[in-house]
Amino acid sequence: MIREKYARLAYHRFPRTTARYLGHPQTDTAPPEEGLPDFHPPPLPQEDPYCLHDAPPNLGYLVRMQGGILFVYDDQKMLERQEPHSLPYPDLETYTVDMSHILALITDGPTKTYCHRRLNFLESKFSLHEMLNEMSEFKELKSNPHRDFYNVRKVDTHIHAAACMNQKHLLRFIKHTYQTEPDRTVAVKQGRKITLRQVFDSLHMDPYDLTVDSLDVHAGRQTFHRFDKFNSKYNPVGASELRDLYLKTENYLGGEYFARMVKEVARELEESKYQYSEPRLSIYGRSPEEWPNLARWFIQHKVYSPNMRWIIQVPRIYDIFRAKKLLPNFGKMLENIFLPLFQATINPQDHRELHLFLKYVTGFDSVDDESKHSDHMFSDKSPSPDIWTSEQNPPYSYYLYYMYANIMVLNNLRRERGLSTFLFRPHCGEAGSITHLVSAFLTADNISHGLLLKKSPVLQYLYYLAQIPIAMSPLSNNSLFLEYSKNPLREFLHKGLHVSLSTDDPMQFHYTKEALMEEYAIAAQVWKLSTCDLCEIARNSVLQSGLSHQEKQKFLGQNYYKEGPEGNDIRKTNVAQIRMAFRYETLCNELSFLSDAMKSEEITALIK
Amino acid sequence: MIREKYARLAYHRFPRTTARYLGHPQTDTAPPEEGLPDFHPPPLPQEDPYCLHDAPPNLGYLVRMQGGILFVYDDQKMLERQEPHSLPYPDLETYTVDMSHILALITDGPTKTYCHRRLNFLESKFSLHEMLNEMSEFKELKSNPHRDFYNVRKVDTHIHAAACMNQKHLLRFIKHTYQTEPDRTVAVKQGRKITLRQVFDSLHMDPYDLTVDSLDVHAGRQTFHRFDKFNSKYNPVGASELRDLYLKTENYLGGEYFARMVKEVARELEESKYQYSEPRLSIYGRSPEEWPNLARWFIQHKVYSPNMRWIIQVPRIYDIFRAKKLLPNFGKMLENIFLPLFQATINPQDHRELHLFLKYVTGFDSVDDESKHSDHMFSDKSPSPDIWTSEQNPPYSYYLYYMYANIMVLNNLRRERGLSTFLFRPHCGEAGSITHLVSAFLTADNISHGLLLKKSPVLQYLYYLAQIPIAMSPLSNNSLFLEYSKNPLREFLHKGLHVSLSTDDPMQFHYTKEALMEEYAIAAQVWKLSTCDLCEIARNSVLQSGLSHQEKQKFLGQNYYKEGPEGNDIRKTNVAQIRMAFRYETLCNELSFLSDAMKSEEITALIK
Repeated sequence: MIREKYARLAYHRFPRTTARYLGHPQTDTAPPEEGLPDFHPPPLPQEDPYCLHDAPPNLGYLVRMQGGILFVYDDQKMLERQEPHSLPYPDLETYTVDMSHILALITDGPTKTYCHRRLNFLESKFSLHEMLNEMSEFKELKSNPHRDFYNVRKVDTHIHAAACMNQKHLLRFIKHTYQTEPDRTVAVKQGRKITLRQVFDSLHMDPYDLTVDSLDVHAGRQTFHRFDKFNSKYNPVGASELRDLYLKTENYLGGEYFARMVKEVARELEESKYQYSEPRLSIYGRSPEEWPNLARWFIQHKVYSPNMRWIIQVPRIYDIFRAKKLLPNFGKMLENIFLPLFQATINPQDHRELHLFLKYVTGFDSVDDESKHSDHMFSDKSPSPDIWTSEQNPPYSYYLYYMYANIMVLNNLRRERGLSTFLFRPHCGEAGSITHLVSAFLTADNISHGLLLKKSPVLQYLYYLAQIPIAMSPLSNNSLFLEYSKNPLREFLHKGLHVSLSTDDPMQFHYTKEALMEEYAIAAQVWKLSTCDLCEIARNSVLQSGLSHQEKQKFLGQNYYKEGPEGNDIRKTNVAQIRMAFRYETLCNELSFLSDAMKSEEITALIK
Repeated sequence: MIREKYARLAYHRFPRTTARYLGHPQTDTAPPEEGLPDFHPPPLPQEDPYCLHDAPPNLGYLVRMQGGILFVYDDQKMLERQEPHSLPYPDLETYTVDMSHILALITDGPTKTYCHRRLNFLESKFSLHEMLNEMSEFKELKSNPHRDFYNVRKVDTHIHAAACMNQKHLLRFIKHTYQTEPDRTVAVKQGRKITLRQVFDSLHMDPYDLTVDSLDVHAGRQTFHRFDKFNSKYNPVGASELRDLYLKTENYLGGEYFARMVKEVARELEESKYQYSEPRLSIYGRSPEEWPNLARWFIQHKVYSPNMRWIIQVPRIYDIFRAKKLLPNFGKMLENIFLPLFQATINPQDHRELHLFLKYVTGFDSVDDESKHSDHMFSDKSPSPDIWTSEQNPPYSYYLYYMYANIMVLNNLRRERGLSTFLFRPHCGEAGSITHLVSAFLTADNISHGLLLKKSPVLQYLYYLAQIPIAMSPLSNNSLFLEYSKNPLREFLHKGLHVSLSTDDPMQFHYTKEALMEEYAIAAQVWKLSTCDLCEIARNSVLQSGLSHQEKQKFLGQNYYKEGPEGNDIRKTNVAQIRMAFRYETLCNELSFLSDAMKSEEITALIK
């Protein structure tokens, strides 16, 4: 019920079945849009994806940050009276109470035993299902015409744009630019123009001799449990100059090289026809100019692709900016990240480029090394962002709360205007403390990684009951935090958690031209997944993604938003109805145990 | 020394280093051809690969089979006198003595302990090498210009032609033929012509609806330890009609569809530029006509590709043919397999097509389910092939001996004429008895699989000392006999066994378009192999292959046939010299232990 509250406030998703058992039914005849996030459908073929002329009028609202959260005021008068525009605003005190409630729950002995047992039961139940129904499932799939694992839609639900090409692709692109335009000015240093040839000369390198070995962007054994080393792999040949030149949106070339590579990746997706991806682009919060610059990069280089939908990642590196005196306090970072979005929402006419770009942005990610320990414990006694001036980085849960809070207000404002809303989809549970998964349980629509659910039966069971989508990247984990064979993906899938497969960083982790297929192939081989398993993962990936309602209907079936077998169109998903029925019955079974227990408690309370 | 004898007799390869320590040095100044198999270099670009005009004259020799082995006679008179042409002929009695010697060795307690310890030592030594030199190796590779894992040559050393395309490829091809030529006559049944449309009608199928699921050629969990089920996966949609039509060289269309698909696979290899493959084509031994038919198929459909070299596989299914009364005895099967080759070698003018085809054939494979048990124990008391009339199948070792014996005589005859020789490269050690590996230790140049070396320390150590190449296919094993994580490839590689990676059957096992890259990628990911490891495997694969001396010089370096670091050209192989030195020193160290022990034994014997 706690998660449901936070989900509804932010237009995040909450499963209808679970809501029904919690006593908050949603009729299946209700329009699917109800309570769902709103994503722009892609422009029609005859439409211009870069059209800047449909910006709605200026509402004239004012926005002020208070305690790290942006408040909207109708006008100057209301601002003076401190009467914000009627939107839900988050309340830190309630939030900390809710947090501590769940924190208490996950350490409660009997609850742990109960969840542990239920999870064991779920796993055994699936094994039994598999033994009994494997051949029937396959028979269903064999008689399903024209659809197989290769032509069901798959979304790469977690991939960083700066690493979305594989190492060979990056190498070829670098060589190509050097061959075709060595004398082009690509940077200015101390007022002096520098050509591409000079860049390589200064690195004492001839691109002809460059290899994937000397490029050295691939993660290897050296990066295991070394996120710091992994991060430096983003620098080709160890040179940050090349990263700036080839993998950034802001540089002397206006990010042209990066845009060209991303577009090459997009063309491959479009040719593959059935593959989509949700690359992350960075907003750092150093300056409010980052947003208009990013929007301009997108439009100027025509980066739109029907097979890509964009996520904004915010690295949790306030401490670095603060140490360099780029920011006075954490509140300023939040303001830089969110104020431009409020402005573009209130007055799209004056922020046409950003307004347009936001149509193709469907969510926010929070990224960085989770294994870094923080001394600070987030509570309602913590300094609020505007007075967080220390050089210490706020803890994970602090970041998550303030990201969620601002996205929540923003979504409500945008919804009021009929504009698209955003999902909060942080990295969570890759490493570090399991309390991260508690924060995300409240604040996130879905998460990336979720490995540490392995360590907390209560959280794992809660994530199951709430069917929180988890984008897992076992090949990435294998290079960074967890050996492939120990990855819990297979176990999670069997139990019925809502998992999808994603690549994270093809540049660092993959060998073949088709990174997402490599990810599926290795999982299939190592864990002996069946075709039905693979197609279930692919279906999950589409559901989890920020693809629009219209696209999901096209890719998964008219009724995709319904739960259980009636939400499945096997002709489109190639998932056996037997499997869907098993999942649905199993979930209902678990939920009915709980709701029965709740009812009997209520009765006991009444009798008393 | 026993293996060395058999290898020299058959023009198989034996490592120079091991020979030197055994007291049979070969000077490094000796021409590399000495004692090496002879493969035709590929035709030059301006040459016609199908030119039939260079057949040497008829020698007029006569050939007769005696005791399952073909003997060559200069003329009718010599035949009557039973004085065969001067070539080495194998001697069954010596062979069985040699066999029993090795069989005794592998069960000898002290020998087992010694080998077990040496192997443990080799593994630990490599771990140490890795810890100390990993970064230096990588540094060597980073400073090696223009060469990386992607552009070193790799040979798929074990792949069956009938499964060399992946399932998606086969599906697309079937649909394409149906779309473009539904009314073509593709078979004749009881005198009635049958069109492609009628074939599918009789199967109640519309190819438009066909999927990889309904095609059902992919191995899954159902095939584990079920070679019988696996074999039936060669039938698309479970229909042997489609196997005959699409995957065979002999049918109404003269194998046109199969040839077209193989050529599509070849084009992809040629485009990849760095990948080669050695597909197996079947000769069954049912009739002597199989050879001219296969040669005609090859020439008529122009199947030659510079990136493919051919191996002939002989299925061990005498029992099936005998039960169907297609063969009177096992000797006839051997005669059908080998006599045409002797005839084409003695009189190429009258067998021009076969003579040409044999230029591109570099070896023989022996294939079937090794886990089938045989009641018969092969010894010099066993019935000879011409009187093996029972319906029982001869055991594995019997097959291997008679294949080897005939290849050996044939190679000597061909060598005398200056024609190319063949390597015997059987499947061995995939399942069944470990004695198979003893047979292959004597008779094979190199083997496919070798999994069971895991179970015999003595054999494993012998395979190490003799550096017998092993083509391993962990993805195939994963579906058939051994889970991926338990595959010994990584362990064998570490110890220094001469292993390469191969796909076996992309149609059944692989998901992506690039099966060999998938094989390398998964091994690299699951076992965290370094670039140097991968490039060492790739180098091994070229050495193991039937590529010609000229090609190997081009792909691996001028001195590739030398052992140790001087045989390695890092600019071509991307294998660190540190690694090569380690391998060489380690092998010399092991061999010197043994040769010192031999010497001290000789001295002890002298004193006595």
